[in-house]
Amino acid sequence: MEFSSKLLEKAVNEMSQLPGVGKRTALRLVLHLLRQPESQTVQLAQALLNMRTEIKFCKSCNNISDNVLCEICSNPRRQQDLICVVEDIRDVMAIENTSSFKGLYHVLGGKISPMDGVGPHDLNITPLVNKVKEGQVKELIFALSPTMEGDTTNFYIFKQIQGLDVVTSTIARGIAVGDELEYADEVTLGRSILNRIPFEGSLKS
Amino acid sequence: MEFSSKLLEKAVNEMSQLPGVGKRTALRLVLHLLRQPESQTVQLAQALLNMRTEIKFCKSCNNISDNVLCEICSNPRRQQDLICVVEDIRDVMAIENTSSFKGLYHVLGGKISPMDGVGPHDLNITPLVNKVKEGQVKELIFALSPTMEGDTTNFYIFKQIQGLDVVTSTIARGIAVGDELEYADEVTLGRSILNRIPFEGSLKS
Repeated sequence: MEFSSKLLEKAVNEMSQLPGVGKRTALRLVLHLLRQPESQTVQLAQALLNMRTEIKFCKSCNNISDNVLCEICSNPRRQQDLICVVEDIRDVMAIENTSSFKGLYHVLGGKISPMDGVGPHDLNITPLVNKVKEGQVKELIFALSPTMEGDTTNFYIFKQIQGLDVVTSTIARGIAVGDELEYADEVTLGRSILNRIPFEGSLKS
Repeated sequence: MEFSSKLLEKAVNEMSQLPGVGKRTALRLVLHLLRQPESQTVQLAQALLNMRTEIKFCKSCNNISDNVLCEICSNPRRQQDLICVVEDIRDVMAIENTSSFKGLYHVLGGKISPMDGVGPHDLNITPLVNKVKEGQVKELIFALSPTMEGDTTNFYIFKQIQGLDVVTSTIARGIAVGDELEYADEVTLGRSILNRIPFEGSLKS
């Protein structure tokens, strides 16, 4: 692509560094900004800068936060000894949306994935193990995605805290509500039968 | 969506103002920036700011430029009395890529589209008509996308310069009707410029 302006070229190049944004999309976005009032671009740039330079991670759970402790960790009405282990902040937001969890979170910042060069020491695992060792935690809920990397991460943490006085559980794996049984994959369907739950239990929602 | 940080929320909101970027995509992009070195965000923000505040539009053709006159208009080897009328800078880039046009451009900045509230006076049409009136132009090539709005715009300009000493042509309809100019392949686009036809001819259809 040949640009008539170095400023335009630089903006398009920076924009196309974002994941899933090619040169053509970047150009479309940048030209859109040019057609909008200058204030929109100023606000976008300022918001990104402020976010990147001033954002903090909660000292306790590693969630994104404006303060030293995030709103969830500093909320006295949340159950302090029930911790849900998740991959990133998007999972926190997804679970918070369901309003069915009243404990705290622990954000790992990723999953163990040797293929991508992510080992256990690149993740926020040690502080979690320390919390358990200090006896602050009664129950740990693993809520990582049920993929190979997620299972590996679950297992690694489980080995670290084995023998300590803590209950571990994972989120239920089964058929999604509203799904057709005949289209479910064999592993999921098989597990959902092995891990069947009392009928009365399934009525709670 | 509930955010644990106002800074994050602001960044996501600003990002999702871009066309085709929803809240979920914006969050994905912003979290990506958080995982990258701070310099990437700084460079992106700076490039967008510089682009929006310092970019100029060529005094002659309205193309995006770093100088008062763009590189094409100030190139003495380009044919000065042959002007190709296009919708926006992406079309200039697409035609330049074919290397089949050696004249100048005139960027309208849009198409007449009453549905979107864009009338002739919102476009850069008057300077083009003035150029023709001053006798600077021998031939005008209409290279707008062959849609209803493009045809309307062609026809509006044609009526404005009717009777003046200028040849008008449109790019050949090798481009499928309804297609966007920027996505046409180079051969088709190049040929459609070489095989341009008198504007009166294109009215019969």
